[in-house]
Amino acid sequence: MKSADRETAEGILFTDQYQLTMAQLYFRMGIHEQQAQFDHFFRKYPDYGAHQAGYCVNAGLAWLLDWIAEARFGQKDLAFLRGMRSRGGHPVFAEDFLSWLADNGHFGGISLRAIPEGRVVHANVPLTMVTGPLAMAQILESPLLNYLNYQTLIATKAARVHAVARGSQVIEFGMRRGHERGANAGVRGALIGGADFSSSVGISHVLGIPPKGTHAHSMVQAFMALGGTEIEAFRAYAELYPDDCLLLVDTVNTLESGVPNAIRVFEELRRRGHQPVGIRLDSGDLAYLAIQSAKMLNQAGFADARIVLSNQLDEMVIWQIISQIQEESARAGVDPDELVERLIYGVGTSLITSSGASALDGVYKLVALRRQGDWLPAIKISESPDKTLNPGNKQVWRLYDRRGKATADYLCLHDEDPPAEKLLDLRHPTDHTKLQAFTAADISRLEPLLVDVIKDGRQVYAPGEINDLRSRRQVDEEYLDSGVKRLINPHIYHVSLSRKLWELKQRLISQARKPD
Amino acid sequence: MKSADRETAEGILFTDQYQLTMAQLYFRMGIHEQQAQFDHFFRKYPDYGAHQAGYCVNAGLAWLLDWIAEARFGQKDLAFLRGMRSRGGHPVFAEDFLSWLADNGHFGGISLRAIPEGRVVHANVPLTMVTGPLAMAQILESPLLNYLNYQTLIATKAARVHAVARGSQVIEFGMRRGHERGANAGVRGALIGGADFSSSVGISHVLGIPPKGTHAHSMVQAFMALGGTEIEAFRAYAELYPDDCLLLVDTVNTLESGVPNAIRVFEELRRRGHQPVGIRLDSGDLAYLAIQSAKMLNQAGFADARIVLSNQLDEMVIWQIISQIQEESARAGVDPDELVERLIYGVGTSLITSSGASALDGVYKLVALRRQGDWLPAIKISESPDKTLNPGNKQVWRLYDRRGKATADYLCLHDEDPPAEKLLDLRHPTDHTKLQAFTAADISRLEPLLVDVIKDGRQVYAPGEINDLRSRRQVDEEYLDSGVKRLINPHIYHVSLSRKLWELKQRLISQARKPD
Repeated sequence: MKSADRETAEGILFTDQYQLTMAQLYFRMGIHEQQAQFDHFFRKYPDYGAHQAGYCVNAGLAWLLDWIAEARFGQKDLAFLRGMRSRGGHPVFAEDFLSWLADNGHFGGISLRAIPEGRVVHANVPLTMVTGPLAMAQILESPLLNYLNYQTLIATKAARVHAVARGSQVIEFGMRRGHERGANAGVRGALIGGADFSSSVGISHVLGIPPKGTHAHSMVQAFMALGGTEIEAFRAYAELYPDDCLLLVDTVNTLESGVPNAIRVFEELRRRGHQPVGIRLDSGDLAYLAIQSAKMLNQAGFADARIVLSNQLDEMVIWQIISQIQEESARAGVDPDELVERLIYGVGTSLITSSGASALDGVYKLVALRRQGDWLPAIKISESPDKTLNPGNKQVWRLYDRRGKATADYLCLHDEDPPAEKLLDLRHPTDHTKLQAFTAADISRLEPLLVDVIKDGRQVYAPGEINDLRSRRQVDEEYLDSGVKRLINPHIYHVSLSRKLWELKQRLISQARKPD
Repeated sequence: MKSADRETAEGILFTDQYQLTMAQLYFRMGIHEQQAQFDHFFRKYPDYGAHQAGYCVNAGLAWLLDWIAEARFGQKDLAFLRGMRSRGGHPVFAEDFLSWLADNGHFGGISLRAIPEGRVVHANVPLTMVTGPLAMAQILESPLLNYLNYQTLIATKAARVHAVARGSQVIEFGMRRGHERGANAGVRGALIGGADFSSSVGISHVLGIPPKGTHAHSMVQAFMALGGTEIEAFRAYAELYPDDCLLLVDTVNTLESGVPNAIRVFEELRRRGHQPVGIRLDSGDLAYLAIQSAKMLNQAGFADARIVLSNQLDEMVIWQIISQIQEESARAGVDPDELVERLIYGVGTSLITSSGASALDGVYKLVALRRQGDWLPAIKISESPDKTLNPGNKQVWRLYDRRGKATADYLCLHDEDPPAEKLLDLRHPTDHTKLQAFTAADISRLEPLLVDVIKDGRQVYAPGEINDLRSRRQVDEEYLDSGVKRLINPHIYHVSLSRKLWELKQRLISQARKPD
């Protein structure tokens, strides 16, 4: 795309057409500046097919805030809207609406509360709540979902990979398979969720995390095409990067050529006083090759050399590799725990595209409208009861049980005060037979999750650096029950409504079902 | 991301770290300006799990060209590289290399040939060939793959959806689930591959295809929250958009409320001389609801009203809906063919993320290096024979058989001239037992696929408008055998090597396998 076109495609018109036609309708009805509240939440944890997530890691807010701060209808945008024609050949957008947009077509009237990035979050819990003039809050739907769905999806996938890697480094490698520019957002999600580094240069720099990378097959190929050999390529690399020498050993033959050549070059490095970093395996049976390579490296006195694995890794493949090493490596005379500890995982395609579940189903729904000072709750009844909204202006509290573990997220109306209640009545969002009561003695802590982010157009929230968000995630993960963290068939975390919210919802459902 | 950071993250540093460390190595060896050739190709057609593609639709080139034209190492980029430190605390990049990058760190020396966008393309066929100074051609790997993999993936998915929709309109709806900014590239891929329109406003404008959209549930909800009713919301919408009146009928209850209310409003519109467009169904059993809605619309005299379906559609779901309509609609008194013809499909998540296969495995491999005027072929032998490269400077020809159908893509060396051969000897890329011979009489046409795009840094190719690329795709799809177009278990299209190329490959494999 040409730079000039990017302003059009990525600015305020980075939204769906129906947001604009609805905004004009609200304008025509005179309700466009009425305060509205929209909830953003996802309905289902990512399901990767053979396995599924039991929690998500929230991400994407900081970049959404950057977009909100800059987006507004400019003359070029309005000129385009002015040119749009109906089937009947009439202008779709009227001049009075366009002139309202010229003056008010920005997010200066919006307030936004959110659960901070890096926190563990759950299905059907509002992660973001937007309050503001109906027309502009409506236009915000598409970009908000676009910014938040994807980073949360990737942070969640990264958390799974991180968990299975048992403290070993995870390096994000996926730029070439990412969805075009989205790859940069994917790197951010990955770094928040559990990747230690990324190979992507520019975005790593922007995020303050140094990029990682060594060499590809092409380097060895280039030497060979010019009449040289694999070891000459390795030697040249070691000479130039004596402190960062990590060699890709599978261009010719891993065990017969790559590893022996790497060991010779490592020995030369050692004689010159440098410690080699290790080798990378990028094809074949990675567990088998890791065991055999470790054996050869150990025998040559390079027991500290790292073994980077790459090629189609995801959390299940890594799990499988570790299991295979635990079963087979002792037979080869290699200590399985030591080997697992020296592994580093380069994870590409599966992480950056969240393969198996390539989208998070986050939605943004109108839940309340204010008239004359009162908030009127809004609802949508769906063909499927699970999709019926939780109406009204709400707060979310996290309940920690006596063990200190997070046990439920509790949605109540904004004017409720759970810490003041003697008994908390937890209702399942749709199944009226599922009730639970918590007394104060059952609860070690009650924590409100939504914080003020934008107040009347002014940002009052500091998004934090990547490392802050990572720490937040680590803390939340420690509070999770291990059943919720299981890779396969995780325990379903409780998300409950307060009695007051549940009753409001039932009342609105009956009202809406009455014939007009 | 802040605008200032975007220059860093999306400019020349939109690449992987190892490209830069390799580029410096080439510089140090004095081979950085040696002419190199890299092939871009994908290895496998997207496999969606229960079904798989038999061909892909090429896309993404125009935007890659825009990136190439602007990308170069600027002072900010170089300052960042200058600051990078090795584990030993030394600068990773030396001043002489950085100063070479300052002068030469752009793509002005690159030549690029490619198969044009919109064309039907196949696995293991070079889609793009880059020739240029080794260092810069290497740095181009990551952005090239990023730009081309994703749009081709989405164009391919769109072609499948388009095929199953039997000429009905397909509207791309996926911005909110797209991978952040990548969503705009996804829209382009979708429009090239088979979507008629997109709901995304800005990018549709940039691409010259008007965006489509009507209203969401929130509009009806807003009216209801303020004490109004669904029909009042519909009426207000019809008043404002009398020529574009398409109503979403499932906010309350599709058949009991939505459709009857829509019909009343359509009758009012008709009395005022306007023709309503139709209704949209977004939940529930879409086939059943389409049949029942069609019946009600027909009875009210709106047999022309369109029925837009949305909610988790993909090619298989659409196929299933059409089958169900064909089985069940006659029983409801609705002509199945007429109903299928009036359907429009809004396809969101599955299209923009290519769900089931969220990445195309395109790669970019060094295949030749020039020394003293001669091209020296380069090879990579892999643990898996399928991944062994086809070396050297090549051309790709498409063979059309006597029926006029495309029957094989034929890879030969650049100096071969297939049209001059009496007998074409087609070799399977890896299996030496698979041979086929074509005489001139077997072939109705031989077409070279790669065209010049950039010659020595100068773009000599006009990418064409979306509609040009669509026409190109339609022509190519007509030349495809119907077996290759099957949604499930498609026939595998032949991709073959010439005898000369096959022999070169075997020779290089034996040479590379010799011990150093």
